[in-house]
Amino acid sequence: MIPHQVRLVEVGPRDGLQNEKQPVAAADKIDLVHRLQAAGVREIEVTSFVSPKWVPQMADNTEVMAGLQRRPGVRYSVLTPNMKGLEAALASRPDEIVVFGAASEAFSQRNINCSIAESIERFQPVVQAAHAHGIKVRGAVSCALGCPYQGEVSADEVERVARLMREIGVDHLGVADTIGVGTPKRVQRAMERALRHYPLSEVSGHFHDTYGQALANIYACLELGVATFDASVAGLGGCPYAKGATGNVATEDVVFLLQGLDIDSGVDLDRLVDAGAFISGVLGRKPVSRVGNAVLAKRPSLQESAA
Amino acid sequence: MIPHQVRLVEVGPRDGLQNEKQPVAAADKIDLVHRLQAAGVREIEVTSFVSPKWVPQMADNTEVMAGLQRRPGVRYSVLTPNMKGLEAALASRPDEIVVFGAASEAFSQRNINCSIAESIERFQPVVQAAHAHGIKVRGAVSCALGCPYQGEVSADEVERVARLMREIGVDHLGVADTIGVGTPKRVQRAMERALRHYPLSEVSGHFHDTYGQALANIYACLELGVATFDASVAGLGGCPYAKGATGNVATEDVVFLLQGLDIDSGVDLDRLVDAGAFISGVLGRKPVSRVGNAVLAKRPSLQESAA
Repeated sequence: MIPHQVRLVEVGPRDGLQNEKQPVAAADKIDLVHRLQAAGVREIEVTSFVSPKWVPQMADNTEVMAGLQRRPGVRYSVLTPNMKGLEAALASRPDEIVVFGAASEAFSQRNINCSIAESIERFQPVVQAAHAHGIKVRGAVSCALGCPYQGEVSADEVERVARLMREIGVDHLGVADTIGVGTPKRVQRAMERALRHYPLSEVSGHFHDTYGQALANIYACLELGVATFDASVAGLGGCPYAKGATGNVATEDVVFLLQGLDIDSGVDLDRLVDAGAFISGVLGRKPVSRVGNAVLAKRPSLQESAA
Repeated sequence: MIPHQVRLVEVGPRDGLQNEKQPVAAADKIDLVHRLQAAGVREIEVTSFVSPKWVPQMADNTEVMAGLQRRPGVRYSVLTPNMKGLEAALASRPDEIVVFGAASEAFSQRNINCSIAESIERFQPVVQAAHAHGIKVRGAVSCALGCPYQGEVSADEVERVARLMREIGVDHLGVADTIGVGTPKRVQRAMERALRHYPLSEVSGHFHDTYGQALANIYACLELGVATFDASVAGLGGCPYAKGATGNVATEDVVFLLQGLDIDSGVDLDRLVDAGAFISGVLGRKPVSRVGNAVLAKRPSLQESAA
């Protein structure tokens, strides 16, 4: 049942660094992507094409994309929330674009001032234009396990977004536990509903470690056969609401889990830990990864450079 | 398959505080136990009866045990590695004693200078004397998933210790991943071997979060029907080999997992978080619990008192 191979989508450069307070130079972002692909990561969410007024951290999107030395077999994705974003992104030749819908009506209203259905309708021309350029579209369903405004989010709501995403031609569905409150059985129930509209190969899980549940949730998804997961090197991304709390699950921790389960991800853990130590050094802090820190603690020289 | 109820064994006062560098006053230890039982914890490993030359942190064992206001239905256990320890413990009327064997021959030789079989033989009179006093005996199998000296530890080795423990009359078997390297499938394989010699009701899991795998491992054990787990409030215990790395899984994180799975542990998460904030304040640091910190971050007044 558990897959033999898993595809990891490294979201640190985009989802991670976008949520870090400290700005990071384009050269360091490019360096991070190069280190990640050298470690064997085969899918990287690089940047977003959003107004720099809203997301100044990603204002260097074109520069970062242009600076990449692309590797064959690696997929480079960017976030494009609307047609303007897609048009701006096209010159950078992304392999994949990402659009975001919420499973929570309250979240959708508060964040983008429209209903879930309206927000997904607006993606339709973006999806069509992307496909016309041979670009794959990933749809992320945020707040799939809980919402900071409405609290509980039902599996019905997840299925509804999955259906709407499918109807407008979104190729891949990411089920995202944005606030990290999911636990294994509830995650399985949400995933099973997503799987009514997408095949196993086109569903992924995106988990946060705010309450430490991410690896248990990933394991529960693996039991369903889900074989694609987002993760963020060094746990980049922090937490939107509280210092000290953690955000995205650390890629290092996921790779350790997969190795123990004899699941191939193509990623070299030591080189990944190096990449995490590098970007953590840029940010002037320790990696937010238990595996990263445990491995670094056994390598005094690297620990010092990352401290 | 997953149990409806789980018994949590709170090991913070003993296993946790024994591994903290900073000494804690007996009054604070007693306060911690009282807060834990008020939060609904029904089994607490309170202290150890070991030579104060070896473990000065537990030199106040008799004082701590005498200071407890015991609650009906709560089981108070103490570590007694030998006959001398048991004799010293008897006046404190523990409900249960704990003895430790290793699944790794290398670990046994290095730590207690004898083979696994010899170490368990030596427990036999301790077990008999405990039973003569109506005291239950828990046997912990350390290094069950890996050893700092020999590396891999096979499920065969775990089963052998389980058999030896059973032969000398040990009532309960704890499978302990002392260095935190276990992952779900390997943990299940070790547990299944322990279950050849002990019933589900008398097997427990003890996991460390050094590599962040503890909750995934607990979930994997729950799938086997295992219904007893050790945990340490606020992640007390640190890590024996590296600063920054984490040790025992935090009880708060386990309770969050169980709540999400609709499994009753009898523990009130908010009061447990309070207990963790209390002892972390005594130690002058933040709790090493993701749930603890996330909950505290939403309660500004408590966060300040714990910071």
